Amino acid sequence: MLEPRGEPRAGSSTETRLLAVDDGVARPRFDRLATEDPLEIRLRAGTETRTVAITMRTPGADFELAAGFLYGEGVIGRTEDVSRISYCVDVPAEQQYNTVNVDLVGSSLPALDGLERHFTVTSACGVCGKASLEALRARGVDPIVSEARVDPAIILSLPARLRSAQGIFEKTGGLHAAALFDLAGNLLALREDVGRHNAMDKLVGWGLLQKLLPFDDRIVMLSGRSSYELVQKAASACIPVMCSVSAPSSLAVDVARAFGVTLVGFLRDSRFNVYANERRVRLEVPAT
Amino acid sequence: MLEPRGEPRAGSSTETRLLAVDDGVARPRFDRLATEDPLEIRLRAGTETRTVAITMRTPGADFELAAGFLYGEGVIGRTEDVSRISYCVDVPAEQQYNTVNVDLVGSSLPALDGLERHFTVTSACGVCGKASLEALRARGVDPIVSEARVDPAIILSLPARLRSAQGIFEKTGGLHAAALFDLAGNLLALREDVGRHNAMDKLVGWGLLQKLLPFDDRIVMLSGRSSYELVQKAASACIPVMCSVSAPSSLAVDVARAFGVTLVGFLRDSRFNVYANERRVRLEVPAT
Repeated sequence: MLEPRGEPRAGSSTETRLLAVDDGVARPRFDRLATEDPLEIRLRAGTETRTVAITMRTPGADFELAAGFLYGEGVIGRTEDVSRISYCVDVPAEQQYNTVNVDLVGSSLPALDGLERHFTVTSACGVCGKASLEALRARGVDPIVSEARVDPAIILSLPARLRSAQGIFEKTGGLHAAALFDLAGNLLALREDVGRHNAMDKLVGWGLLQKLLPFDDRIVMLSGRSSYELVQKAASACIPVMCSVSAPSSLAVDVARAFGVTLVGFLRDSRFNVYANERRVRLEVPAT
Repeated sequence: MLEPRGEPRAGSSTETRLLAVDDGVARPRFDRLATEDPLEIRLRAGTETRTVAITMRTPGADFELAAGFLYGEGVIGRTEDVSRISYCVDVPAEQQYNTVNVDLVGSSLPALDGLERHFTVTSACGVCGKASLEALRARGVDPIVSEARVDPAIILSLPARLRSAQGIFEKTGGLHAAALFDLAGNLLALREDVGRHNAMDKLVGWGLLQKLLPFDDRIVMLSGRSSYELVQKAASACIPVMCSVSAPSSLAVDVARAFGVTLVGFLRDSRFNVYANERRVRLEVPAT
C-alpha cells in the first residue's frame, strides 16, 4: 500500500510541435508538455449537489486530488466522511475525466461558506496575515504534536531522492512535485502536477483514502517554493517537517511557527535553512 | 509615464530569523523573505458592495493588482469603467493596506457569475480545455491582431535584462516577475509578486490605469512557467509575444494558438523554443 506511485497515467503529458531556435536557426521538433486541464469537483449528499471547485490540474490521481482538496479546506475530516468518489460519466467524451463527484455520508451538504470565499474573513472589512492564522484555528487546525526528529544527513539526501523518482519532470520541465518520506529518508509516495498545491493535495488525498493520516512521523519535500497555502495543507495533515529546495514566503514561516511545522528551505548541495521549529532537526549549534 | 518602476514599496520583503545549516553545523542568521499577505478586492457601484476576491500577494502595486485582476476576468474593459481605487481605511491598523475598494462608474454591479465560478462552465456537467477556450471567446477575448515582429537576438537578451532589473528577487529568492518590453528590448515596466498571476495582473493593471492598453506592440517576459491563466491574461491585454525561461503547459500552448499569442519557452543561453505563432519571430528556417 505504501509503494511509490510516481508514474503518471497516460494523459499527464501531451506531445506538441515546436520550433527549436539555436543561434537564430529554427528547426521543427516534437516535445512533450505537462498536461493542464480543468477538473471540476462536485460534492453530493442526499439529493444535494454542488460544484465546490474548478481547478486547473495535470490529469492523474484525480480522486486523491479531490479528497485532498476537500480535506485541506476542512470540508471532510476522515476517510469515513466519504462514501464514494467517481467520475461524472454523463458528459461528452472529451469531458469524461474532468468532473469528479465526491459523495458524502449524510443526507445534506455541510456549510461551505468558508470555502466559497477561500478564507474566512474574521472582520466585516479587512483581512491580514494574522486573520488568516485565526481562520485556520477556527477551522480546527491545531499545532502539530509529534516527537519526530530527523538527521541533517537525511534532509540533505531528499532533493536527489526526489529528482530520481520524478520521471516526468525531466521530460517536460513543467511539473511540480510533492513527495512523502519517512524519517529515515525512504520515499513513500510522490505526486506531480502543474500546480504546486495540487501535487500536495494529491499526496494528502492519497493518505486520506488509504487511511494513513495523520502523517505525524513523515517528511514532505516540495520541488517549488513554500507558500502560506502549502504549509497550511501540511499542518492540516499533521506533517511535522516540510522541506523545499527554494524560498518560503513570510506567511509560510508564520503558519509554520504557529502550527508547529518544521520548515526547511533553500535545501541545496550541503546546505539548508531552518525557518521554524528547529527542535526536530538534530543540529550541532556552535557556542557563540 | 513609461519609466520602469521595479522598486517595491517597503513591506514587500520581511526580515526573519533562521538557522543556516552547513555540513550539520547550524548558525543563527537573519535574512529577508518575500512578503505574502492577503489582499481583499471589493467592487462597489452605487450602494452595492461585493468582495470579489481574496488573494495572497506581495504588498505593493495593490491598485494595479486589483485593476489588472478585474480586467483579466472581464469585469472591467476600459480605464473609464473605474471611477476610483482606494484602500479601505475603516479597519484595524494591521489590515489597513489589505483591502482595496474599486469604485465602478454606474449605479449597480455587473453580473459576476463567471467570476464566482472562476470559469464559465459551458455545459451542465463537465469542463475541459476546449470549454475553457470557448469561455474566453464568450467573454469577448478575440485573437490578437498585431503586426509586431521581433528579432531572435532581442528575445535572447530578455532574461539578462529581466534579472538585472529584478532587485528583490536576488534578496529573497521568492518572487516571480513579469516584465514588459518594447520590440527593441527596452524595459518599460517590471512587477514582482509571490504569485505569478499577481505579477502579471500588476503589469496589466498598470497599463490599464496609465491608459497604455492594448499592449499590441509589446513583449512580456515571465520568470516562471507559462500556464493557461497567464497566456489568457496576455491575450486579454493583446500582448502579441510572451516569453518564459521555463516550460509552458499544454493548455497554455492551446490558448496561445487560439488567441494569436506568440509563445516562447525555455529561453536560456543562446536557445529558445517557439510553441505558437512563430510568424512574429524573424527566423531563418533551414530547408529540410
